[in-house]
Amino acid sequence: MINLETHSIEFSTKGNTQLVDITKKVQDILNHSEFKEGNVTLFAVGSTTGLSTVEYEPGLVHHDVAEMYHKIAPYGFSYHHNQTWGDDNGAAHLRSTLTGSSLVIPFQHQKLILGTWQQIIFIDFDTRPRSRKVIVQILGKK
Amino acid sequence: MINLETHSIEFSTKGNTQLVDITKKVQDILNHSEFKEGNVTLFAVGSTTGLSTVEYEPGLVHHDVAEMYHKIAPYGFSYHHNQTWGDDNGAAHLRSTLTGSSLVIPFQHQKLILGTWQQIIFIDFDTRPRSRKVIVQILGKK
Amino acid sequence: MINLETHSIEFSTKGNTQLVDITKKVQDILNHSEFKEGNVTLFAVGSTTGLSTVEYEPGLVHHDVAEMYHKIAPYGFSYHHNQTWGDDNGAAHLRSTLTGSSLVIPFQHQKLILGTWQQIIFIDFDTRPRSRKVIVQILGKK
Repeated sequence: MINLETHSIEFSTKGNTQLVDITKKVQDILNHSEFKEGNVTLFAVGSTTGLSTVEYEPGLVHHDVAEMYHKIAPYGFSYHHNQTWGDDNGAAHLRSTLTGSSLVIPFQHQKLILGTWQQIIFIDFDTRPRSRKVIVQILGKK
Repeated sequence: MINLETHSIEFSTKGNTQLVDITKKVQDILNHSEFKEGNVTLFAVGSTTGLSTVEYEPGLVHHDVAEMYHKIAPYGFSYHHNQTWGDDNGAAHLRSTLTGSSLVIPFQHQKLILGTWQQIIFIDFDTRPRSRKVIVQILGKK
Repeated sequence: MINLETHSIEFSTKGNTQLVDITKKVQDILNHSEFKEGNVTLFAVGSTTGLSTVEYEPGLVHHDVAEMYHKIAPYGFSYHHNQTWGDDNGAAHLRSTLTGSSLVIPFQHQKLILGTWQQIIFIDFDTRPRSRKVIVQILGKK
């Protein structure tokens, strides 16, 4: 029979397009549940965040991803958003729009189906340290 | 017990990267249902659309988002797509590819889990006014 | 009553931002199932892939999509990722980050709800031919 449970992960970030590997935390929630087959809906709460399944590798994580987003929506630019609120995170909203904040990942035998080099990555695009929450909702057969 | 209902939202747009805040309409469907905990799958019907959770704020909505997409895939450029069909919306398809047309948002206590500044945004990338439909499918516990 | 089945599609690609129309294969799985209403979660296994619902039209498929990604994350550039592993697919990871690897599509009367010009497209961003797998998980009422 199909059932559903809603969990969440909370953590701190430094912002500025920091990538956080949350794969283990999501798999741990699954390990402590009794679900065998189904899917996990991940949802990043906040409009300056993103979820992706890029490889968590130092070159990408510390350089390439940030440099790509810099080309598309640079930090420090005078966005209209910044003029409305007097803040400076217009770039973060734009990067979030392109990246997306929800992700659905299937699992079988209580294990997330991911490629060998595929991790679940939370990206904090904001321009300052933040406390973040990702909803982890499991739907499936026990 | 888990149940499922399929609803939809219909509205008109002006196209040209118009952003439409559909948060209230989705929450209203949830309010009129008996679902307490679960998720809502949103799917934008059409290949020149996008769904996002950007903040619905005038600076972003009327300027910054359109300017970012203009850098990536400008309107008015001579795309191969335009030569195939004799139309002019190649840029709209490209913008849609990057943005994505499905979104899954969890809810608890009959309320969508969204950040304070996080709205559900439909983007119409097409180059002319359109009638649009977004599927709103609820899955969860009553 | 709600039930769930996990299937998969396997195929070969040439890489280099090749677009593959997998709509028929997904609909076929649905045709052979007994599900009437629900949704299909698609998940591309691998971190150099993407899923989209762009129109499968020659101009977009053979030219425009690749040209857009070339502007954002060109092949052949000296990414930090390439220095870590001695490989050359940094661009593929970046393109995947923007595009996303999961997609949820609702269906009714055993038929995927898609626009007239909207197909389900797998994109292989890697720089060499690959064998690929897409998970097709059906959740719904029989």
